[in-house]
Amino acid sequence: MPKTILLTVSLLATLLGQQPAPLLSPEVHPDRRVTFRVQAPKAADVGFYGDWMPVGSIQPMAKAANGVWSLTVGPLEPSIYIYSFTLDGLTIADPINPRMKLRARTSASLLEVPGSAPALWDARDVPHGSVEINYQKSKVLNGETRSFWVYTPPGYAEKTKQRYPVLYLFHGSNDTAGGWVLAGQANYILDNLLADGKLVPMVVVMPFGHAVPFTAAREIQASNTATYERYVLEDVLPFVESKYRVLKDRQHRAIAGLSMGGGQSLTIGLKHPDRFSAIGAFSAAVPQNIEEYLGNLNQHQLKLLWFACGKDDFLYARSTTLDALLTKRKIQHTFRDTPGAHTYTVWRQYLGEFAPLLFR
Amino acid sequence: MPKTILLTVSLLATLLGQQPAPLLSPEVHPDRRVTFRVQAPKAADVGFYGDWMPVGSIQPMAKAANGVWSLTVGPLEPSIYIYSFTLDGLTIADPINPRMKLRARTSASLLEVPGSAPALWDARDVPHGSVEINYQKSKVLNGETRSFWVYTPPGYAEKTKQRYPVLYLFHGSNDTAGGWVLAGQANYILDNLLADGKLVPMVVVMPFGHAVPFTAAREIQASNTATYERYVLEDVLPFVESKYRVLKDRQHRAIAGLSMGGGQSLTIGLKHPDRFSAIGAFSAAVPQNIEEYLGNLNQHQLKLLWFACGKDDFLYARSTTLDALLTKRKIQHTFRDTPGAHTYTVWRQYLGEFAPLLFR
Repeated sequence: MPKTILLTVSLLATLLGQQPAPLLSPEVHPDRRVTFRVQAPKAADVGFYGDWMPVGSIQPMAKAANGVWSLTVGPLEPSIYIYSFTLDGLTIADPINPRMKLRARTSASLLEVPGSAPALWDARDVPHGSVEINYQKSKVLNGETRSFWVYTPPGYAEKTKQRYPVLYLFHGSNDTAGGWVLAGQANYILDNLLADGKLVPMVVVMPFGHAVPFTAAREIQASNTATYERYVLEDVLPFVESKYRVLKDRQHRAIAGLSMGGGQSLTIGLKHPDRFSAIGAFSAAVPQNIEEYLGNLNQHQLKLLWFACGKDDFLYARSTTLDALLTKRKIQHTFRDTPGAHTYTVWRQYLGEFAPLLFR
Repeated sequence: MPKTILLTVSLLATLLGQQPAPLLSPEVHPDRRVTFRVQAPKAADVGFYGDWMPVGSIQPMAKAANGVWSLTVGPLEPSIYIYSFTLDGLTIADPINPRMKLRARTSASLLEVPGSAPALWDARDVPHGSVEINYQKSKVLNGETRSFWVYTPPGYAEKTKQRYPVLYLFHGSNDTAGGWVLAGQANYILDNLLADGKLVPMVVVMPFGHAVPFTAAREIQASNTATYERYVLEDVLPFVESKYRVLKDRQHRAIAGLSMGGGQSLTIGLKHPDRFSAIGAFSAAVPQNIEEYLGNLNQHQLKLLWFACGKDDFLYARSTTLDALLTKRKIQHTFRDTPGAHTYTVWRQYLGEFAPLLFR
């Protein structure tokens, strides 16, 4: 752990009076408690929110004589969390933490709490896939140049004859094309599952889910899934199938997403079971009209229809309603009813459960 | 411009009283003036810094009755700028602007001011290369898993027999491996130069330049270039040459960087002219001991030694001193003495001038 050694040397230098200590935030202690700090001597009120707390709640931070506000929380379970400060009413990312949770608006910060053993989402000493950012002028989006991210498994560059199945993997509302990698660590999850012999090697395509601007009016937003469906099927999918060595039949195409992206994967997947044979939906914003599309499964049965939601999720009822509907319609599916809320902590776990079921 | 149309519909909906207008920041006006806004009703003092302003200066923002602080600046020349707010003394990114300037610490925000015609760094309607994030367990950095970014030119995935020359391209202090793409738009610059027939197609490798932690003590920081040199030559270069279809001789390897990265490219390039035949240094932190390495050029002459600095740059004297030294030593070089300061506005231009000279 060179980082630890170097920081210790740095702290030593500081203790010897050679330079002022740089402010640390977040500081993860060995017992998995975490201290957050922000230097705001003139602020009247500083609060804290972490995504393990109830949505909308704020914990007060305390001000020291040097103008540094701090709060120690935990111990926290090993995971990667999202947090923000509220400074005199304004919600901001931690100004000195380089690990940002990028968003379509209102970015926040990431906190990694390691466990004693490497977790599913950690960079382990296994072969790593890579993640390629592709730039495409979108016909559907009137010529706008958009980027989408593509995970290719270890060995992809070398095994030049092999073709791979594809998972289209969607993020949630107010996230970005990189969300599943930067906050979800999907690449490391897939690397680890592969190394453990639990995964069929696959290419994973991650487009940007806001086909209409995130800040558009509600009635424009209502058209997002329909526009996104065309963007994915008419722009992204043909690009992927022409550039990457992927298999091009429904048996080797899956579609999944979280939250808004779960609603998108259910809608697009159920509207087009001729193109996708497996659907995953994590803590999904299940659309109200989903029943309309179930008839399509008479023509094209799915190999896998898998969804999951945490009991503390504000969208939980959408998943239990879907479960009841599918059961009533005698449509084969798996509903994983788990602990947890609307956070990447459960979405990493869901990807780890869902991906190994694909392309069997 | 679908975005413009959709925003107009959104504003229309707002005007019709259907929903509150979302706060806009930054708002670029047609005349290239720009309005910044931040909702901070309880703040006592809010200031603004943009990287076209003198370093360290702050412009005050004005508070309206609704608690929104704002400032209108410009008109600004077309470019992509970096800016931040200072809220009661705390420097923060714009909390609602999704385009972040990611940094090793103290991230900020990006502002794009478009011109009437597409600029060198704009996404034009030309074939696009892609940018791949690679994950590697570094031997030199004691097993730490690091990512580095690699641009491959349009056609790379298809032209499976072609081998390409390589440019190693380094960012500055407090930047990240993605800096040259996310703030520099290096990928679009290279795409555009290629489309205009001005560039030899090349692979561009962008590692993370902080081999020791950015917050380490000064005496640890002093070892950064030496550690980074080993990281680049012993970890990154062999990985690149085994994975990518690149040419592996000095004639087809170049090294360049900006600021701290310019110092690194001069040091590593001049220490190893047996490995690199071209060096570029943009607004470089030229090391004091650079003369030590000049003797190496007796064995291996460079095809290109190119550096540039803006007259308003705080590092300007380092480049003029280097120019005088090389002239005295009768070492062939090009020094571009330009207007401008220590910003990506000049670095994009320098890449646009330097890259076309390579591999001729």
